[in-house]
Amino acid sequence: MSEASVLPVGDPAPIDFYFDFISPFGYFASLRIDALAASHGRTVEWRSMLVGVTVLKVMGLKPLMEIPLRGDYLKHDAARYMRRHGIVMKRPIARPPTSPVIAGRAFHWLRVHAPDRARAAAAALYAAYWVEDIPLDTVELVADIAGLGVAADRRAVLDGIASGEAAALLRQEVDASIARGIFGSPSFLVDGELFFGVDKLDLLEEWLAIGGW
Amino acid sequence: MSEASVLPVGDPAPIDFYFDFISPFGYFASLRIDALAASHGRTVEWRSMLVGVTVLKVMGLKPLMEIPLRGDYLKHDAARYMRRHGIVMKRPIARPPTSPVIAGRAFHWLRVHAPDRARAAAAALYAAYWVEDIPLDTVELVADIAGLGVAADRRAVLDGIASGEAAALLRQEVDASIARGIFGSPSFLVDGELFFGVDKLDLLEEWLAIGGW
Repeated sequence: MSEASVLPVGDPAPIDFYFDFISPFGYFASLRIDALAASHGRTVEWRSMLVGVTVLKVMGLKPLMEIPLRGDYLKHDAARYMRRHGIVMKRPIARPPTSPVIAGRAFHWLRVHAPDRARAAAAALYAAYWVEDIPLDTVELVADIAGLGVAADRRAVLDGIASGEAAALLRQEVDASIARGIFGSPSFLVDGELFFGVDKLDLLEEWLAIGGW
Repeated sequence: MSEASVLPVGDPAPIDFYFDFISPFGYFASLRIDALAASHGRTVEWRSMLVGVTVLKVMGLKPLMEIPLRGDYLKHDAARYMRRHGIVMKRPIARPPTSPVIAGRAFHWLRVHAPDRARAAAAALYAAYWVEDIPLDTVELVADIAGLGVAADRRAVLDGIASGEAAALLRQEVDASIARGIFGSPSFLVDGELFFGVDKLDLLEEWLAIGGW
């Protein structure tokens, strides 16, 4: 085999970043994944899913934060992560989540109809929910934030959320994530290799650097 | 307050290392925890528990390896860890576990009656189970290994396992671990701070180095 034949052809595949808007660890990962990927010449495909569907219906578990012992630990671990990384959020980790369905529909509608704005909208929705403690539980709130301050976009997002298309797109993405083995937020899929949890970002970076073990 | 009053008095407390003999990630941690602790002037108190009791009865979950999606991921993650760390084991990760109760009874009996040999016995039991694929499901097998090749010790361990004391000691330790919030293997408790999972060893080391965040 000649040396030339093992040279990469084109850009490497993006990292698929799976997250749920109501997942604090997903939010933490969202603050680091783009820079981490870029430092290894990768882009990131942000993909919101619904952990509730996966955990409850596919895995047969109750919400992780409600599991005895484990729920307490996860809250403690999140607070520890925040202190270590200097993250301040108005929304308490322990407060029961609102539904992420409206935000998920808006995000996936944007991915199709305004793909260059979807990532920024997701980051804005995440910051609104966790940092500003805005519940994202009405179409108006979500459209305000996902519209990124552009009145015409706000209107388009409002109409998009209400469309059956947005609901179908989110449903498809949740089904596709389960088919790919995704069971929690955050998850990262790179060249077919799955990493679960913000604690795996260092390992993911090592994988990107050396191409696996 | 004078400077002298904040100087440490005596040795720092040991790190409590909670593990289950049937946990592969617990085995991985057992290979690193002593050296990690020693490099920060700490000793380690090895404490075997029964994840099955905690997971099934307290948390209301099925065994993690049997949970859809998550079980597959854990097997993949364990195999990846083994490649990265050069660990070779004859026992397949995916094979259903045997009961760790006999090994746990022997270990806790040794902790009371031969405390200077308990850690070495635990390491030998762990290596027998995972590296050599010895099931640890009879008192004879466990006594052979936990006796560390000394005939008189083998006899003492055999008698110890059969005693009600050994069963009571293990039961007490499992109850105590649950009371301290331990829900999985491996877990590490240092100065009241809990870390779960072999992936947290780097964070635990940072905690030891800087005293927390």
